Amino acid sequence: MDILHKKILEHGHVLPGNVLKVDSFLNHQIDPELMLAIGKEFATRFKDAGITKVLTLESSGIAPSVMAGLELGVPVVFARKRKSLTLVDNLYTATVYSYTKQTSNDISISKDYIGDNDVVLVIDDFLANGQAALGLATLTEQTGATLAGIGIVIEKGFQSGGQLLKEKGYRVESLAVIDSLENETVTLRTEEVK
Amino acid sequence: MDILHKKILEHGHVLPGNVLKVDSFLNHQIDPELMLAIGKEFATRFKDAGITKVLTLESSGIAPSVMAGLELGVPVVFARKRKSLTLVDNLYTATVYSYTKQTSNDISISKDYIGDNDVVLVIDDFLANGQAALGLATLTEQTGATLAGIGIVIEKGFQSGGQLLKEKGYRVESLAVIDSLENETVTLRTEEVK
Repeated sequence: MDILHKKILEHGHVLPGNVLKVDSFLNHQIDPELMLAIGKEFATRFKDAGITKVLTLESSGIAPSVMAGLELGVPVVFARKRKSLTLVDNLYTATVYSYTKQTSNDISISKDYIGDNDVVLVIDDFLANGQAALGLATLTEQTGATLAGIGIVIEKGFQSGGQLLKEKGYRVESLAVIDSLENETVTLRTEEVK
Repeated sequence: MDILHKKILEHGHVLPGNVLKVDSFLNHQIDPELMLAIGKEFATRFKDAGITKVLTLESSGIAPSVMAGLELGVPVVFARKRKSLTLVDNLYTATVYSYTKQTSNDISISKDYIGDNDVVLVIDDFLANGQAALGLATLTEQTGATLAGIGIVIEKGFQSGGQLLKEKGYRVESLAVIDSLENETVTLRTEEVK
């Protein structure tokens, strides 16, 4: 996706530890026009999948998901991160391990908004080890809904998440795949350019 | 704002303690079409204010803000909630007291994305005691930017936040004002219907 590739190359910063900082347009400051373009691209890729709900994770997943929901004409549900759950009555919950922070966090959604008739598109901003996406997939499975696929804004192709999700049989659509962040340089997978 | 009023009356639930639950379209599940309409309304109300940035708070403020940013043609910055700040070097920080939870939380933004040439529109999903909006106003003042006003999706008109913000000289634009949640019934301020 050209506009996203351009943005990453121009405005992404590589930090030590293979961290790509995209705070200027995705994770902290948000570029709404870019989010709309991303939403349109997800909608195009999943246009024949019969999507009825988009599921994402707060906070950085919300902007691209709302634009995808707008384009697909369906509601968006965002899972909440909670360290401890005092209200577990009406929730589906999954545990997500963060390799970066070396902690586990529960993520949860209400039982009210996704059901077994739904066809869910999971969207997240980043895919690295795949744990967040896997948590969202687990939540989807708990609802009884069909998981049509997983849309990712930026995939770190040199980490194992994409492989892990595909091995589980999930359709993964990443709008940008990074092959390397070595030497503080972003190397994008070029066959993804559209 | 008609479409929002209708949504609140049809899908809002009143819980004990004057809590209005709008989880089905704003706080957990999000209605993207409604968010677009809300964004357009904020853009219309602030069209002559010379806005250069929208500032909001994760997570429920993000969807309406991204739509407002899209309509105004400006970037959105979302403040992060943190219980403790380990990285304070490049951040502006304000403390927000929650009357509901009876705890204080720090909210923060990077110094990179709002500066003294900016004209900021603060947007939040709810206005009750005004502490979150006040925190966002404080962050704006720390940046040196001009605060053009505060856009609120739903104001609880029977709580003190709106008054507090207006007394401080801020322009407050609430798209729906709730006058009462007594008897488990939502009473909307009708002069706000447009």
